Amino acid sequence: MIVVMSALASARDISEVIARIRAMGYEVHLSEGKERTIIGVIGRGRPLDREQLGLMNGVQQVMPVTHPYKIASREYHPDDTLIPLNGIQVGGDTLAIIAGPCAVEGRSEIIEVAHMVREAGATALRGGAFKPRTSPYSFQGLGEEGLRYLAEAREATGLPVVTEVMDPQLVSMVCDYADVLQIGARSMQNYALLHAVGESQHPVLLKRGMSSTIEELLMAAEYILSHGNMRVMLCERGIRTFETSTRNTFDINAIPVLKQASHLPVIADPSHATGKWEYVESVAMAAIAAGADGLVIEVHPDPEHAQSDGRQSLKPERFAALVSRIAQLAPVVGRRVALKVAAD
Amino acid sequence: MIVVMSALASARDISEVIARIRAMGYEVHLSEGKERTIIGVIGRGRPLDREQLGLMNGVQQVMPVTHPYKIASREYHPDDTLIPLNGIQVGGDTLAIIAGPCAVEGRSEIIEVAHMVREAGATALRGGAFKPRTSPYSFQGLGEEGLRYLAEAREATGLPVVTEVMDPQLVSMVCDYADVLQIGARSMQNYALLHAVGESQHPVLLKRGMSSTIEELLMAAEYILSHGNMRVMLCERGIRTFETSTRNTFDINAIPVLKQASHLPVIADPSHATGKWEYVESVAMAAIAAGADGLVIEVHPDPEHAQSDGRQSLKPERFAALVSRIAQLAPVVGRRVALKVAAD
Amino acid sequence: MIVVMSALASARDISEVIARIRAMGYEVHLSEGKERTIIGVIGRGRPLDREQLGLMNGVQQVMPVTHPYKIASREYHPDDTLIPLNGIQVGGDTLAIIAGPCAVEGRSEIIEVAHMVREAGATALRGGAFKPRTSPYSFQGLGEEGLRYLAEAREATGLPVVTEVMDPQLVSMVCDYADVLQIGARSMQNYALLHAVGESQHPVLLKRGMSSTIEELLMAAEYILSHGNMRVMLCERGIRTFETSTRNTFDINAIPVLKQASHLPVIADPSHATGKWEYVESVAMAAIAAGADGLVIEVHPDPEHAQSDGRQSLKPERFAALVSRIAQLAPVVGRRVALKVAAD
Amino acid sequence: MIVVMSALASARDISEVIARIRAMGYEVHLSEGKERTIIGVIGRGRPLDREQLGLMNGVQQVMPVTHPYKIASREYHPDDTLIPLNGIQVGGDTLAIIAGPCAVEGRSEIIEVAHMVREAGATALRGGAFKPRTSPYSFQGLGEEGLRYLAEAREATGLPVVTEVMDPQLVSMVCDYADVLQIGARSMQNYALLHAVGESQHPVLLKRGMSSTIEELLMAAEYILSHGNMRVMLCERGIRTFETSTRNTFDINAIPVLKQASHLPVIADPSHATGKWEYVESVAMAAIAAGADGLVIEVHPDPEHAQSDGRQSLKPERFAALVSRIAQLAPVVGRRVALKVAAD
Repeated sequence: MIVVMSALASARDISEVIARIRAMGYEVHLSEGKERTIIGVIGRGRPLDREQLGLMNGVQQVMPVTHPYKIASREYHPDDTLIPLNGIQVGGDTLAIIAGPCAVEGRSEIIEVAHMVREAGATALRGGAFKPRTSPYSFQGLGEEGLRYLAEAREATGLPVVTEVMDPQLVSMVCDYADVLQIGARSMQNYALLHAVGESQHPVLLKRGMSSTIEELLMAAEYILSHGNMRVMLCERGIRTFETSTRNTFDINAIPVLKQASHLPVIADPSHATGKWEYVESVAMAAIAAGADGLVIEVHPDPEHAQSDGRQSLKPERFAALVSRIAQLAPVVGRRVALKVAAD
Repeated sequence: MIVVMSALASARDISEVIARIRAMGYEVHLSEGKERTIIGVIGRGRPLDREQLGLMNGVQQVMPVTHPYKIASREYHPDDTLIPLNGIQVGGDTLAIIAGPCAVEGRSEIIEVAHMVREAGATALRGGAFKPRTSPYSFQGLGEEGLRYLAEAREATGLPVVTEVMDPQLVSMVCDYADVLQIGARSMQNYALLHAVGESQHPVLLKRGMSSTIEELLMAAEYILSHGNMRVMLCERGIRTFETSTRNTFDINAIPVLKQASHLPVIADPSHATGKWEYVESVAMAAIAAGADGLVIEVHPDPEHAQSDGRQSLKPERFAALVSRIAQLAPVVGRRVALKVAAD
Repeated sequence: MIVVMSALASARDISEVIARIRAMGYEVHLSEGKERTIIGVIGRGRPLDREQLGLMNGVQQVMPVTHPYKIASREYHPDDTLIPLNGIQVGGDTLAIIAGPCAVEGRSEIIEVAHMVREAGATALRGGAFKPRTSPYSFQGLGEEGLRYLAEAREATGLPVVTEVMDPQLVSMVCDYADVLQIGARSMQNYALLHAVGESQHPVLLKRGMSSTIEELLMAAEYILSHGNMRVMLCERGIRTFETSTRNTFDINAIPVLKQASHLPVIADPSHATGKWEYVESVAMAAIAAGADGLVIEVHPDPEHAQSDGRQSLKPERFAALVSRIAQLAPVVGRRVALKVAAD
Repeated sequence: MIVVMSALASARDISEVIARIRAMGYEVHLSEGKERTIIGVIGRGRPLDREQLGLMNGVQQVMPVTHPYKIASREYHPDDTLIPLNGIQVGGDTLAIIAGPCAVEGRSEIIEVAHMVREAGATALRGGAFKPRTSPYSFQGLGEEGLRYLAEAREATGLPVVTEVMDPQLVSMVCDYADVLQIGARSMQNYALLHAVGESQHPVLLKRGMSSTIEELLMAAEYILSHGNMRVMLCERGIRTFETSTRNTFDINAIPVLKQASHLPVIADPSHATGKWEYVESVAMAAIAAGADGLVIEVHPDPEHAQSDGRQSLKPERFAALVSRIAQLAPVVGRRVALKVAAD
């Protein structure tokens, strides 16, 4: 941390700031200029609050030198974290493709979709049993019944299940049915929930909040990691901007930024990022070209009758076409797709 | 709802859309133009999904005609909602002034602040026992111990207590100590929590999410209201924008917009909205001039040593000066401040 | 400027950075920590590019210590700048109230409005002769004919004329008719135009770009000031955010921030900031309560038939009511309104 | 256009709205519901102002049915527009790759870069002679001298020249030297400039404003097209958001949205969109994978000593590596790169 003293700071102001820093167990390096003095804070002491220093007399600015996350950083863990999922290692050469409907709507429907996406090359099945909905009057999901159907779909197809958990009280129940816990964008800073999934040992798909910075996403991951659960996949799903022609703005820059800053796998969600099925393929291709480790794609056999987010869901045949195109693209970026056809 | 058919829609497309609308219990009014047909959806049928209609063949656009919240709207409840708090009616002539530190840091400290803000004219005491912090390594609050200190401060001063609840499991415990439940900006779309406070009968101070629209704030209020708790105060606390010279951008426009759209009281939080104590007074004055029903202000006797948000906290004497200025301003907008001095 | 070297920087990296800084005429203060070295750049040398330093081997971060504007800053000019306008000093005790239609639509119409706003207490008349319109198919203004009508309205009422100039080639022509040159939000970074108005000696009303930071606004002012024209009024007119219920988001925080950072007067434009006449009064009141030096308000005798921005224009009687309310508010913030009625 | 009358509108309100619409030469289709009446505006009359209708008594909302641009739309011109550039057709199978330094810094330097980028596979040379700089104290470009050097570089290499024009007065002078006129992000709504380049017959590279919507970009293109110049390339270069880890947020969604809405070619600028050279390759790959017709890339032989934007410039060898990767990717999306090696 660096403390820039104001040009008007008195010698006493400066010595009080130094005393405060030393009292917390740090050393100090002074840089006295003609116009102003700058104080470098050195070593490892007790947590030092940047804001508090900023309030001391004569202090103009306090600037952090390092980022606030630790376990999530590449400095801490230089190698890519690999998370096993259905025979592949998420974060490794093979791309993860997670597909399924926004919400589980019925038993036969989810089993049917699971078969379809598996045929097309999906690594895992997604589907919401608990749905965060802006309106209290919208369909809120089937709850535990939906989880049971997901588990049945897994049994029928072998696909692991990715599903959202919204309430810390329900983490253990969701763990009974699901293979990967999804933290939705609206819950990214629900610290009680991050705490609860951090204590489970289930892999987590952590979605970036609609208006969270990349640093905040990594801090949310840090919450989970610091509770001992190291299996976190970061998910870019679009951010809120002034643009209204799409539901969100997919932050493609975030992919190389996250891959550089962190060792955790990065998954892209082009369905939520665009909100319109006709743009999903282009953005999915872009995400993989930029270095993403996988995709989450909404697929619904009958989008017109979907109970939520039909507007952004692909029909199964379009999803299959998308996976083929991704399979063509993958080698260009040193990746591959575990196509079921190839496996057979 | 209005369905605009594409210029290329066939007669069959049109009749299928009409059939779908009728099947849900609505009537249809057709407007056939030279270029396109427009279908008005009329009456009250079963919930009709705008997105699903949008996916039908030949549909170009589906436009809502009404807003999605009901109980929160002025149409539903034309008169201002009044919420009793320490002898005043929040939403009425007298301004509510809620003040105190960001976090409860100790027993004697919170009692001391409570006395100070009461002397200066505060209506209620705020203080966080559970703190949502971006970093897992920051101070997370004193928990139930903090709640006990708040209750003691109430006993000592008569000031009702406003404090944040973050975890649905803890709502009943927080209710045991607090007079008003605060839902923080990060929790505005935590539906499990909204559900839980909706079922309590405690008044709620609902903060707007950092990047939530005004409509989303009203939808979050609708969640609480629809669970039977009608005592919701809306709180504008600044939104996230590209501007970096302040912590957030206070959305002053939101005050007249909310007062027009809803009957619920609107409280302004200039401390979080600016993030710097030197701007708090100007924005507090602005909020009252624009029609807000009250203020939440961070006050700390020693901001330099505050455990969180010291940068934006007023010292008690500055808070007292602010209340005097608000008291001068209030009559210009038909309001008043229940100054303790005036009451004595 | 402070250069933070990476923990991995070599001794040679460090000495090359130091050599570069010294070569530009600066002194260097070294702070060598256990983990990293920090280099303070001291004194006044030739312009030093932050980005270039940032690219040198071993450099982690380069941080500015001072803001990039000079003449616009309070450090440079501690006293408020006062700009004479129709007998008042803008930036002083008396509030400037600039009112009129968005666009000049005809001779008799602008003269009629000028009389109306003068009666209500306006300090100056606004009206656009050249209109920046998003669509090439919208009304683009009357051009020089409009300027002539404005000059006639000044002759008839004594009100000075504020009007926009968009094209550097037209600055001298607009100066022939207008008293204050307005730089519109879309032109805030039109440097050819800033250069041209900087060389004129007309006062300038400089509107903040729709998505410009406060610092960028001050840098745009710096362009004008650095060409020798010291009479710049800054205008906050709302910024672009994700919120859609109003046309823009009025950045009320900007008022105290600008008043603290700069000596230039700050004018608020609640008409563009809200886009809806019913919110104009609340936001105008807020701006004055927050410390603004004046207002620009759109007034049109028949908003339903206005050729542009009718949605946000006040009828003259509403404008008169607004001025009365501002006159009541002004003394609370140490200001006054030069009401014509009071002056007679 | 659709006019939704309020539930409280009187019969007279409705008939006055109808009369106004008919007076402008349109037909009207009435949809009278139990709660409200909806009026469809049909046919082609004189320009009808949505805002004015919105102000009439009893009107709740006025909704447009079509987008505001015409010549720029795919409906108007269903086939892709192709713009010849150095032997390729921009918008066709072969990707356009425009490369060079941010600013022209000297004669030998620009000629050297031109040779380098040509060797690597560039289609055209970019370089700024007039630089829009936030600060009046930064390097503003070499002006006409820079244009002369660019023309010499073209002569030496055969590469056509793309350079920015900022001042309408200078359009004809820039046309004397340049092959493609660039409109910078800050000038996207400089209508005097759009008018001037619209009247030239030079191809235009139109950059999206930092906070302009996609619709506004298409409206800016419409200005140029409506003046008779049909050779407009749209350029996505990142938008301003709350994220601070990159200079801008590249709006990858904009690529499929623009390709669907318009027939004009779409070029991506990953250098400005990220602001850091280490992310340029990922975002360039993403843009091509999403369907862009080409790239603009900043290349500088010695970024550390660049006079502007060195932080985001690639060294020539990295640029060459990028072009090779793009060449591998292109066939996956049905495109190709006109590698010089292939041409020889």
